[in-house]
Amino acid sequence: MMAGLRRPSDPAVVVGTETSDDAGVYRLSEDTAIVCTADFITPVLDDPYLFGKIAAANSLSDVYAMGGVPRAAIALAMFPKELAPEAAAQILAGGQDQVAEAGAAVIGGHTVRGQELYYGLSVTGVVHPDRIFRNVGARVGDRLILTRPLGSGLIINGLRKGAIDEARARPVLARLAELNRAASEVMVQLFEHVHAATDVTGFGLLGHARNLAVGSRVGLAIDLGSLPLYPHVREMVEKGVTTGSTRPNRESVAPLLRGALSKFWDELVHDPQTSGGMFISASGARADELCRRLVDAGVADATIVGEVKASTSDGPFLEVRGE
Amino acid sequence: MMAGLRRPSDPAVVVGTETSDDAGVYRLSEDTAIVCTADFITPVLDDPYLFGKIAAANSLSDVYAMGGVPRAAIALAMFPKELAPEAAAQILAGGQDQVAEAGAAVIGGHTVRGQELYYGLSVTGVVHPDRIFRNVGARVGDRLILTRPLGSGLIINGLRKGAIDEARARPVLARLAELNRAASEVMVQLFEHVHAATDVTGFGLLGHARNLAVGSRVGLAIDLGSLPLYPHVREMVEKGVTTGSTRPNRESVAPLLRGALSKFWDELVHDPQTSGGMFISASGARADELCRRLVDAGVADATIVGEVKASTSDGPFLEVRGE
Repeated sequence: MMAGLRRPSDPAVVVGTETSDDAGVYRLSEDTAIVCTADFITPVLDDPYLFGKIAAANSLSDVYAMGGVPRAAIALAMFPKELAPEAAAQILAGGQDQVAEAGAAVIGGHTVRGQELYYGLSVTGVVHPDRIFRNVGARVGDRLILTRPLGSGLIINGLRKGAIDEARARPVLARLAELNRAASEVMVQLFEHVHAATDVTGFGLLGHARNLAVGSRVGLAIDLGSLPLYPHVREMVEKGVTTGSTRPNRESVAPLLRGALSKFWDELVHDPQTSGGMFISASGARADELCRRLVDAGVADATIVGEVKASTSDGPFLEVRGE
Repeated sequence: MMAGLRRPSDPAVVVGTETSDDAGVYRLSEDTAIVCTADFITPVLDDPYLFGKIAAANSLSDVYAMGGVPRAAIALAMFPKELAPEAAAQILAGGQDQVAEAGAAVIGGHTVRGQELYYGLSVTGVVHPDRIFRNVGARVGDRLILTRPLGSGLIINGLRKGAIDEARARPVLARLAELNRAASEVMVQLFEHVHAATDVTGFGLLGHARNLAVGSRVGLAIDLGSLPLYPHVREMVEKGVTTGSTRPNRESVAPLLRGALSKFWDELVHDPQTSGGMFISASGARADELCRRLVDAGVADATIVGEVKASTSDGPFLEVRGE
């Protein structure tokens, strides 16, 4: 929807709404730009404090995906009348704690009464205007890295539908509260070798891969067998769990897709992620090193999952392999 | 709700959530701080483009109230399924045009599907960390200035309830799209003489006056007869129009209130404002000059509406006079 807005002519706008990047970037001076983003989501589990943490991690992730450092956040909330005040306070406290974990501060908020429950943050971070990660810039020969498992949408919906119990879902969902901070810091250290990056959220792996392929005018080949997955996802697919976004996600990338997908992989590559990982296009010669350094920094699931190819006469494409 | 959050211990937080200020302020360097705020509202009239402008002016106002200059904005929207795509586009376009009018840029957005329609902005502005207007700092002997008429809540609700037709309401509502930019710029020019300031929004004149009185530990005396009012507000009150926030607003300031209010003034001083004016505590010696310069800058309704008194043994108070 936002992509339809014309690009502001303001020369201080480094990244606007035109390339489906994760956040906007606005130059304040020669060496300082602000990274601005906002996100709010519906509850992913019944624990208000953990939900607050996950929603905050999800909002902060867009700043990390651009190589920025989160500084200040504003809480954005829609709370239904029926929500217990203690639950609302727990959501806000979870968000605030995760913002503090990011080294930033919640300095305000806006809350409305509504029929649905939503919570999230608008976040302002800082970044050097010449050191921004974007959707554009992936080069032929790059290798693709994914830093977190896929399948959180299946677990969240499995829990909602009773296909998995809280005891088994919770350890997975707790991981969604983890920040992409360490991943971003390692990427910044190897800035010259990170040619493009995004985080994987609502459009699923292939939806965000599509933005990167189109933005960079390349083809992306993804090795299905190498994709990191959360536990229990095969069980969720076998039980028929899916999400409301999976089908629109699938339809939106279909024109670019090459290769066959089994039912299982079809669910996973289109599964909308909450607080998903970084998807990185790194120079072929340094991708192994980047991956190793990510793992050393605690990003345990960072894995090479594919490579960048030249786009063909049909334009950018997404190739899935290994089925 | 946000005031219940503990203050972040981060020393870069210049203004956090503890004093009901209009926006948060976070120091980036010795001479640069960011002002961050977010607001989203339900439609105030049936014209999507004008609504977008008003919602944007309303969101930008919090940055102006702190003496900041808006730079970058993120659109925040909840759009119901039934909303025509053209109407959604008009709302976003109105917002974007008003952000451009402020010299800032919309650099991103977050839209969700929901049952209600909400639109607004998160805004990041810049300000010198030593030149911030706050709720605290009003001094005994200051005079109080209000820069815009009261009663927009009555007009908006009168229109919803059919107590006023679109043709008569629209000229009033169109004024809500005006920015508080000129007012803020004049206040910045006379920075040393502006001891405290806020903008008048959902809590009504007395609700925001209360925040300023409590924050500054003073009493505020307001001359009812001098308050600027939008056209048609007496008719609205006579027709029994009120708003859903008027009663909670009244109850929340009742403990501090001194003096009698007729039904008419009772509605007006508690009427929630959308995109309301600045409420300024300026040094007694320079208030006339500030007011004159505001009028010269196009802030035609700027008026002296009262004065600051010493708080008594009961603490801060709000006195209404001239009934």
